[in-house]
Amino acid sequence: MKKIHIIGLGLLGGSFGLALKKAKPEIKFTGFDLDPKNLEDALALGIIDEAKTELEEDIDVVVLATPANSLGDLLLSTLDQIGPKTLVIDFGSTKENLCKAVANHPKRAQYLAGHPIAGTEYSGPKAAKADLLDKKVFIICEMELTDVHLKGMAYDILEALNMKLRFMEAEEHDRHLAFVSHLSHVSSFMLGKTVLDKMEDEKNIFDMAGSGFASTVRLAKSSPAMWAPIMEENKKNMLEALSLYISNLSKFRDKIIADDYEGLSSEMQKINKIGDILDLGK
Amino acid sequence: MKKIHIIGLGLLGGSFGLALKKAKPEIKFTGFDLDPKNLEDALALGIIDEAKTELEEDIDVVVLATPANSLGDLLLSTLDQIGPKTLVIDFGSTKENLCKAVANHPKRAQYLAGHPIAGTEYSGPKAAKADLLDKKVFIICEMELTDVHLKGMAYDILEALNMKLRFMEAEEHDRHLAFVSHLSHVSSFMLGKTVLDKMEDEKNIFDMAGSGFASTVRLAKSSPAMWAPIMEENKKNMLEALSLYISNLSKFRDKIIADDYEGLSSEMQKINKIGDILDLGK
Repeated sequence: MKKIHIIGLGLLGGSFGLALKKAKPEIKFTGFDLDPKNLEDALALGIIDEAKTELEEDIDVVVLATPANSLGDLLLSTLDQIGPKTLVIDFGSTKENLCKAVANHPKRAQYLAGHPIAGTEYSGPKAAKADLLDKKVFIICEMELTDVHLKGMAYDILEALNMKLRFMEAEEHDRHLAFVSHLSHVSSFMLGKTVLDKMEDEKNIFDMAGSGFASTVRLAKSSPAMWAPIMEENKKNMLEALSLYISNLSKFRDKIIADDYEGLSSEMQKINKIGDILDLGK
Repeated sequence: MKKIHIIGLGLLGGSFGLALKKAKPEIKFTGFDLDPKNLEDALALGIIDEAKTELEEDIDVVVLATPANSLGDLLLSTLDQIGPKTLVIDFGSTKENLCKAVANHPKRAQYLAGHPIAGTEYSGPKAAKADLLDKKVFIICEMELTDVHLKGMAYDILEALNMKLRFMEAEEHDRHLAFVSHLSHVSSFMLGKTVLDKMEDEKNIFDMAGSGFASTVRLAKSSPAMWAPIMEENKKNMLEALSLYISNLSKFRDKIIADDYEGLSSEMQKINKIGDILDLGK
């Protein structure tokens, strides 16, 4: 592996570049970002060695790390341009539309549908960190549709990055992610909105907000340029997740109205279990 | 100040004892907890020096740190028992009902309505930490109703604990806390429930949950024995906060249904401001 090209030099694309450079210093990194400031920062930070708009014939891997709603067109045009030995991997948070869009492309076998489960509430190349992907899960969808040789190259990269592989269908991926990631962001954004709408005095918010509020609302700092497209791409599952969430909140409210605090307590007790599940990772 | 008695030796009562002992080693700490295991742990951990059920005449300060719905009766019976030079402080998360309950008590001036803005998702004396209260906000309600001399003793303690004082009316306190603390807990519990209901395979939850989900759902590990009573005591404000939250979530869902992703994006942009507000504290 000698040449890797990254399109989209934000938090994920940037962290990928920094980490792989460390692990495989022999590789030459080129890249591009529609935002000239991002491109400039990525060069200054050493995420890429050179800015390029055209894809050279001998690139080993092209990584697509742009917002979810841009990936469909970008993936198709990238496949159209690459030579026969190049692999294209995307890092998008949604996979179903993408896999459908590329299903009949003659170079489908040169594409690997990926999703690194990593991120922070910050964005852009300056937020990139060499250890962001370390020990994180990398989900691969429709793995059987990718060429065996090219897939081997992807495994080499992911091993060098110390990532843990998981395999699932694209539809399953999007449904689960709606619940386990995308819904968290909406719940956090709307919590932030509810508090901002109600409390005019910002000093009060800050003074009275314990660490609990800070951690629950943290994701409300996330980039709208990343998250609005995810809502768009995962519309069906987001609507289901949001409806169930709203229904659970309404039932909780009904229990307060009915003064059913024993019912509330026993429900909360059951949910406490989530702690054990998350602690599996520690 | 020579003698302090703590009723309720959980996370808050325990952390208070550990911290004040460090700052003022000359004080003797007695205390009580309805749960014999908590009492035993508090003694073993050195949170109190001696277990006592009766209040001695020469106690300087009695601290009440039991669940919110138990504080009303406990406060009244404690005031009934104390001598004329004892101060009673409570650490409850709600203040309005408590201040009303005590309004006509002949020893009202011996009570200080307090609320330390500190906590974790864990509970019990074993979760107590000597630095939990350090640099945190301590809200005092109806401060003008407490005897000046006794109030001075409270300020001594809070200064020794390195806490920052804020003053507000009880009604205002409960309304603000509903939004900035109590609602976070409900949003987190219901997020946990929505995910648990939907995903039967716990391994999948853990694998696919990024750090975003973990931080948003963290409060769902909190103690129902503490939080159901808070819902009860702050019923009116919780219903308002929950209704606004549900309404904001429903409007967000409507924007997805209408494919109004520009609208979503500009709304999220406005909410990003919460990051600046919370960063005030750093």
